[in-house]
Amino acid sequence: MYNDKSYLDLNPLFNPEGIAIIGASNNPGKVGGMTFLTTIIGGFSINHLYPVNHNEEEIFGLKSYKNVKDIPYNVDLAIICVPAFNVKDVIKDCVDKRVKFGVIISAGFSEADDDGRKMEKEIVRIANNGGMRIIGPNCMGISGSKVHLHALMNMLIPKEGGISIVSQSGTLGSLTMATGSIEGLGFSKFVSSGNEADIHTEDLIEYFTEDEDTKVILAFIEGLRDGKRFLNTAKKASEKKPFIVIKGGITEEGAKAASSHTGSMAGSSSVYNALFKQTGIITAIDGDDLVNLAKGFYMLPLPKGRNIGIVSAWGGIGVLTADACAKEGLKIPSLSKKTMDSLNKLLPPFWSRQNPVDMTAAGIYGSWDLFIEINRLVLTDDNIDAVVCMIPLFTSIFKTVLDRMEDTRHYAESMIDFMEDTESEFVKNFVGLKEYKKPLVALNISRRLESKSVTYLEENGIPFYSSSMDAAHVLSKMVQYKEYLDRSNEE
Amino acid sequence: MYNDKSYLDLNPLFNPEGIAIIGASNNPGKVGGMTFLTTIIGGFSINHLYPVNHNEEEIFGLKSYKNVKDIPYNVDLAIICVPAFNVKDVIKDCVDKRVKFGVIISAGFSEADDDGRKMEKEIVRIANNGGMRIIGPNCMGISGSKVHLHALMNMLIPKEGGISIVSQSGTLGSLTMATGSIEGLGFSKFVSSGNEADIHTEDLIEYFTEDEDTKVILAFIEGLRDGKRFLNTAKKASEKKPFIVIKGGITEEGAKAASSHTGSMAGSSSVYNALFKQTGIITAIDGDDLVNLAKGFYMLPLPKGRNIGIVSAWGGIGVLTADACAKEGLKIPSLSKKTMDSLNKLLPPFWSRQNPVDMTAAGIYGSWDLFIEINRLVLTDDNIDAVVCMIPLFTSIFKTVLDRMEDTRHYAESMIDFMEDTESEFVKNFVGLKEYKKPLVALNISRRLESKSVTYLEENGIPFYSSSMDAAHVLSKMVQYKEYLDRSNEE
Repeated sequence: MYNDKSYLDLNPLFNPEGIAIIGASNNPGKVGGMTFLTTIIGGFSINHLYPVNHNEEEIFGLKSYKNVKDIPYNVDLAIICVPAFNVKDVIKDCVDKRVKFGVIISAGFSEADDDGRKMEKEIVRIANNGGMRIIGPNCMGISGSKVHLHALMNMLIPKEGGISIVSQSGTLGSLTMATGSIEGLGFSKFVSSGNEADIHTEDLIEYFTEDEDTKVILAFIEGLRDGKRFLNTAKKASEKKPFIVIKGGITEEGAKAASSHTGSMAGSSSVYNALFKQTGIITAIDGDDLVNLAKGFYMLPLPKGRNIGIVSAWGGIGVLTADACAKEGLKIPSLSKKTMDSLNKLLPPFWSRQNPVDMTAAGIYGSWDLFIEINRLVLTDDNIDAVVCMIPLFTSIFKTVLDRMEDTRHYAESMIDFMEDTESEFVKNFVGLKEYKKPLVALNISRRLESKSVTYLEENGIPFYSSSMDAAHVLSKMVQYKEYLDRSNEE
Repeated sequence: MYNDKSYLDLNPLFNPEGIAIIGASNNPGKVGGMTFLTTIIGGFSINHLYPVNHNEEEIFGLKSYKNVKDIPYNVDLAIICVPAFNVKDVIKDCVDKRVKFGVIISAGFSEADDDGRKMEKEIVRIANNGGMRIIGPNCMGISGSKVHLHALMNMLIPKEGGISIVSQSGTLGSLTMATGSIEGLGFSKFVSSGNEADIHTEDLIEYFTEDEDTKVILAFIEGLRDGKRFLNTAKKASEKKPFIVIKGGITEEGAKAASSHTGSMAGSSSVYNALFKQTGIITAIDGDDLVNLAKGFYMLPLPKGRNIGIVSAWGGIGVLTADACAKEGLKIPSLSKKTMDSLNKLLPPFWSRQNPVDMTAAGIYGSWDLFIEINRLVLTDDNIDAVVCMIPLFTSIFKTVLDRMEDTRHYAESMIDFMEDTESEFVKNFVGLKEYKKPLVALNISRRLESKSVTYLEENGIPFYSSSMDAAHVLSKMVQYKEYLDRSNEE
C-alpha cells in the first residue's frame, strides 16, 4: 500500500495560512497587478493576503509591505511576480521569513537561455536549503479551492469542485477550467507547473492521488524528466481515480516547439504511447476532448460494458450516433423483448422498432413525459450499459433565430416563452433518470445550444455533448478505463 | 462542358411565385401550424402565401382556402402537411391547379411499411404524369433565401448567404444551418430530401453546381440509389465548387439504423470511400466537422500549399497546434531570414525564435498593434501558405467568471469595460489582415468564448475554432482539395 509519507505534503501550498504576493501592483496591466487582483476576486481572505511592493503603501486598498520579512504574520506561500533578476534576492528573504512554498510566475529562466538556466538552479538550491519548495518559474499560478485561493496571472477563476489539474501550459489549464466551469465541472486544485525547476508533475499527481477532495486528475504534459517515475506515479493514480492526460509534443514538430517553451525535452510519440498503455491513463487529444472526458468521468458512474442504447426523435441523428459508437468500438445491441413490448405500446407503428430507438415525431410533438418514459425503458434494459439521448432542447436556438427576424418575430414570441417554461420542467424530470445509476449522456448536435436547460442538466450531473463522435468517444474511454480496472483487480 | 438542359430546373421550387401550405393550422404544436408559422417568420411575402385548411377561415390572420384549387392566383409550390392517407387526393388537386413542385412533409410512407411504399409510388406517378415534381415525403421542408422562403417544420431559419444544402436528415441540415448562422455562415438553398421518392440528392447537387448563388455545397447522405450517377454528379460539383459530404450509415450498425429511417439502403463503407476518393468530395465526420469545414471553405481563399505559420502568446498552445498540424499532414516550415530579423527586432529576446512563433507575454501585456504586426509578418512570409493565430479574446470569458464572483467582482468591473472596448478595436484591425489573401484562422482553445469579438471576426471572414485539431483539420482538407483541383486541371 501507499505510505502516507512517501509523497510531498503540499497542504501549505493549497491551504496556506498566509500569502505574500511579491511584486503586487495597482496596475492590472502588470503581471503582479493582475495576479493580486485575481487573488482578491477569487475570494481568499484579505486578512491573510499581503502585498509586497518596494514603492507602494497600499495595493488595491490593502496595506503593502516593502519586504516579505516585514510582514508580522505567518506566511506559508509566496507568489513571486518580480523581474527574473530580482527573484534570487526575494527567495533569500522568503527563506529568512520561513515561507514554505514559492510560486514563481516570473519568466526569463531556463526557457530563455543558459544564464537563465544557471539562475534557476541557484534559486532552487537556495530555497531547498532553507526548507522552501518551488513551483515554476515561468508559470501562471495556482488554485486551492478549499480556501478560495486563486493566485493566477489571468482572471480565469474556476468553479470549485472535485477535479484537480497540473498543467505544463498554464493557459491550457486555465482555459480548461474556464470552459469546464461553464459546463458543469468544478475544480479542487490547479497548478501551472511552468519550468518545474523543483516540484515536478509527478509530485503533484502523487498528492492528487491521495487527496480526498480530488475525484478526477487532469494533466497537460509537454516533457518529463523521469519516465520510470512517471510510470509508477500514473499507475498508482489510475488505480485510485481517473487520470486524464493530454500530451504536447508527440510529433516532431510539436516536440521542437516544446523544447523552446518550457526548456524540457519532449519524448517521442512511441515512448509515450507505450508508457500510457501500461498505466491506465486516459489520453485526451486536445482541450475540447479534455473537457469532454472530464465531464464524463466526473459526472457519470462507469459503464458496466460496451452496450449502448441510442434514443432520439430524429432518424438521421440516430444513424450518425450508431456510426460513431461503432467507430469507437461500442456495441448497439438489440433491446430485450420486455423493452420492445413496452415501446410498441407507447410509440406509433412506424417507430424504428430497434436500437437506435427513433421515436419519430412522437418525440417532438408528443408529450415530454413520453419522451422521458422511453429513455427510462431503454436505460433500465438489462441489455444496455449506457444511453445516449438526443435531447430536444431547442428553445435557446429558436430565440437566436427570432432575434434576427425583427419584422416577424412577434408571431412566435409568446410561443417561445411557453416553450421555455415547459422545457425547464422537462429537464428537471429528465435529471430524475440519474436514479438508475447508469451512464446517461445528453446529445444535441448544435454546439450553439447554450441554454439554461443545458446548464441545468450539467449542474445536475448529466453531461451534454454537441457531437455524436464526442459522446461515443467519452463512453468508449470510460469503458476502456473500467476494463483496465477490472484487469488490474484480477491481477 | 455541362449542358444547361441536362439538369432539372428547380427555379420554381426555390423562387416560387406563390406557395400553398396544405394542412396549415393555427396550432404551432401541429406540423402544419409550425411550418406555416416558420414560413411567415422567415419573411416570404404574405401576399403570395396561401394556407389551405378544410375547417378554418383564417390561419395566422391570412385568408385560408378549403382546397388548393380555390386559390385564385398562380401556385408554383405546395408544402403538404396533411396526414399520409390524404396526400394522394391533395396531389390530384395540385395537378389540377398546375402546381409545379410539391414538398411532402407528411410521414408514413416507404419508411413505415409496404402499404406506405405503394402509396408513395402511386403519389409520385400521379404527380409526374401531371407535370409536378416531388420533394420528400417524410421531410422537414425547404429554404430558398432569394425570396426569403423558409418552409420548415421547425423554426431553424438560417441566415442568408452562399451555402446550399441537401440533407437526407432534415434535423442535421437544420442544426447545421442554425449553428453556422451563429458562426458567420449564410445559406442560399436547403432541401430536406426525406424519402426521395422523386427528386434525388443528385438532382439537387446538379442544380447547386450550376447555381451562381451557391458557393459551397453541403450534403448529408444516408443512402444512394445510383452510385454511378452520384460519382459523375459529385465530380462535376467538386470541379466547380467545394462539395462537402457527411455520410451516415458507414458502419454496419449505422447502416442498420439508416434502413429503418428513410427506407433507402445504405452502402458499405468501402464502396463509399472508393467513390469519395475519386471525386474530390470533402468528407466530414459529424455535424461539428461539417460546420468547421464549411467555415473554412466559405470564408477563406484556398491555401497554395501545406506550410503553416503558427502564432501565439502561449507556448503550450503553440506546441499542441504544431502537433495537430503534423498529425494532419501539414508542415511547420522555418520562417524566412527577413521575417526572423523583423521578429527579433520586435520581440523580447526569449521569444521562441522559430515557427511556432511564441511571442510570450509580450503578446498579452504588449500592445495590440504589436500582436497584429507579428501576424502580418508571418502571414506575408513567402515560406508560409496559411496562418493559425491563437487570438487573445478573453473578455467574454472573464465576464462569465466575474458573474459568479458576486462579492468581489466590483474590483474588476471597470477594467472589463475597458478590455471590451480595446478588444473590439483590436478585432477590427485584425480583420484588416484579410487583405493579404492568404488563409488566416483564429484559434482560442475555449469553446465558451462567445463574444461580440468572435462574431465580428466570423462575420468578416475570419473563421474561429476552439481546438487546434479542428483548425489543422480544416486547413488540411483545404490543401487536399487544392491539390485535387490542381491534379484535375493537369489531366
